[in-house]
Amino acid sequence: MTHLEVWAPDGVGEVRRGADLGALLAGLVDLEDGDVVLVTSKVVSKAEGRVVDGTREEALPRETARLVARRGPVRIVRTHHGLTLAAAGIDASNVEPGSVVLLPVDPDVSARRIRERLHELTGRSVGVVVTDTAGRAWREGQTDLAVGAAGLTVLEDFAGRRDGYGNDLVVTAPAVADELAGAGELAQGKLAGRPFAVVRGRADLVLPLGDDGPGAAALVRPDGGDLFGWGSREAVLRALRADPADAAAFGAPSTAGELAEAVAELGGGVRAEEGAVVVENLAPETLRTLAFAHGWEADMTEADGSVRLRPVRP
Amino acid sequence: MTHLEVWAPDGVGEVRRGADLGALLAGLVDLEDGDVVLVTSKVVSKAEGRVVDGTREEALPRETARLVARRGPVRIVRTHHGLTLAAAGIDASNVEPGSVVLLPVDPDVSARRIRERLHELTGRSVGVVVTDTAGRAWREGQTDLAVGAAGLTVLEDFAGRRDGYGNDLVVTAPAVADELAGAGELAQGKLAGRPFAVVRGRADLVLPLGDDGPGAAALVRPDGGDLFGWGSREAVLRALRADPADAAAFGAPSTAGELAEAVAELGGGVRAEEGAVVVENLAPETLRTLAFAHGWEADMTEADGSVRLRPVRP
Repeated sequence: MTHLEVWAPDGVGEVRRGADLGALLAGLVDLEDGDVVLVTSKVVSKAEGRVVDGTREEALPRETARLVARRGPVRIVRTHHGLTLAAAGIDASNVEPGSVVLLPVDPDVSARRIRERLHELTGRSVGVVVTDTAGRAWREGQTDLAVGAAGLTVLEDFAGRRDGYGNDLVVTAPAVADELAGAGELAQGKLAGRPFAVVRGRADLVLPLGDDGPGAAALVRPDGGDLFGWGSREAVLRALRADPADAAAFGAPSTAGELAEAVAELGGGVRAEEGAVVVENLAPETLRTLAFAHGWEADMTEADGSVRLRPVRP
Repeated sequence: MTHLEVWAPDGVGEVRRGADLGALLAGLVDLEDGDVVLVTSKVVSKAEGRVVDGTREEALPRETARLVARRGPVRIVRTHHGLTLAAAGIDASNVEPGSVVLLPVDPDVSARRIRERLHELTGRSVGVVVTDTAGRAWREGQTDLAVGAAGLTVLEDFAGRRDGYGNDLVVTAPAVADELAGAGELAQGKLAGRPFAVVRGRADLVLPLGDDGPGAAALVRPDGGDLFGWGSREAVLRALRADPADAAAFGAPSTAGELAEAVAELGGGVRAEEGAVVVENLAPETLRTLAFAHGWEADMTEADGSVRLRPVRP
């Protein structure tokens, strides 16, 4: 039986620029080797001076690597960290009105600093997770997840393992750092001023001192590695624009078979030729838009009006 | 300070059709009022006889309400429950080779039955969550989430509350049922045969007996209520096909302003007219595809070639 304890200490008080988070936490909790410490990105940012005057809208362009989806005032963007977050995770709550809190510049580095400081002060080897609150596609509400991590297995990989029936566990890889962040939120709450939480009981996830692990960056799917790189409406707009700069977020080129299937759904036909795909009976504008989204482009138009396509070199 | 305990009992053994999950759990754990009990959908399905012969591919069409995205062998679909899951959550692990486990028909009903049974056997008032393991957009790995719930606040709503600085907490609504599911997974693991977990310490989330709450269905965003109703490539294909049956998943019609912004990005112009939007200088095929994704349709073409659009009645 695995038995976990999760708690969030009171009494942290206001965190200001330059605050020593490790010392704050060490003064409140008697840490043990193998504990996992959760720290909200909010206080990490405050300690690191990532509070700026102005509104979310004013700060957003600087924090944005790429606009992913929009509706009304909502802007879902990919941040420079690779996180896909509403308003780039810029937070206007729990901060002086008129200012906003940006995410830490590199939350994995922040987590490593806190880990190191906690070791210095307590002699303990702990894992550290920097957490943020994020919405999800398809589901209401938010959960906390790991935006930074140090000294922790963030993803338990069971590939190659088998269950009790001998079935391969091909793709099972629990994102334990995110689950730890969510567990911490259950103890922290949103209104009680508890930026720290501790999870005790999964020391198996904590890496030896000197090994900080891959960080929460390992939980970020690379741009173009995801089927939801664009919001639905944004995807259509980007495919119609067909700007080469927007191609990567649609992903690596489809296979010829996938492209052929899509062409068929639009009433076109595909003629297989040596090392190429030739599409017949599809309006040029339609084919161009479809091909762009699939990572293919027109190579030449044949005499009979059919179009020879090739995958865009990634 | 909030202090949680999370544990997952060993010794459950194989769960077969007709198994009394409440009795199984009650025999292993001394429950208290306010505990939250987590049960994997896998054993709920097994107990409910949702194991069928065949492969995931064979079972998938029956479990699918709508194809959302595909790549290679991957099919991400919206299930009849409204869940967006790879292969509709059909599971080929921890089951006899040659058969697969489907999700429970109505996991909220399953959760209510287990809650009732646990009360019958123990006299305790607990919350129940039926969990499943799911991938996420944009992030590697999976987390457990709540596909069924009974007697539980699944979403803590802070709308209308203020933080310590007087800022409105407009959209903050932690999906605590999902965070509880993830916390349970940390104790259960994937290989140890522990389908149950208990979270003790958030009795405030457990509803009085007789009130089963909204269930995990309340965590499902309605179809069309999400910016990611289609995978990026699927969105482009669906907009090009312009089948009215596919319109709803793109969401409610954009505002005239949103549509105008998109038209402008494609080099077209918008003429404002009383109660209508008239688009100029955009190829008809392009406009049709863009308008479809935005929930608008051509009303009439003017003498000068510009197109008058109106939002599709939802």
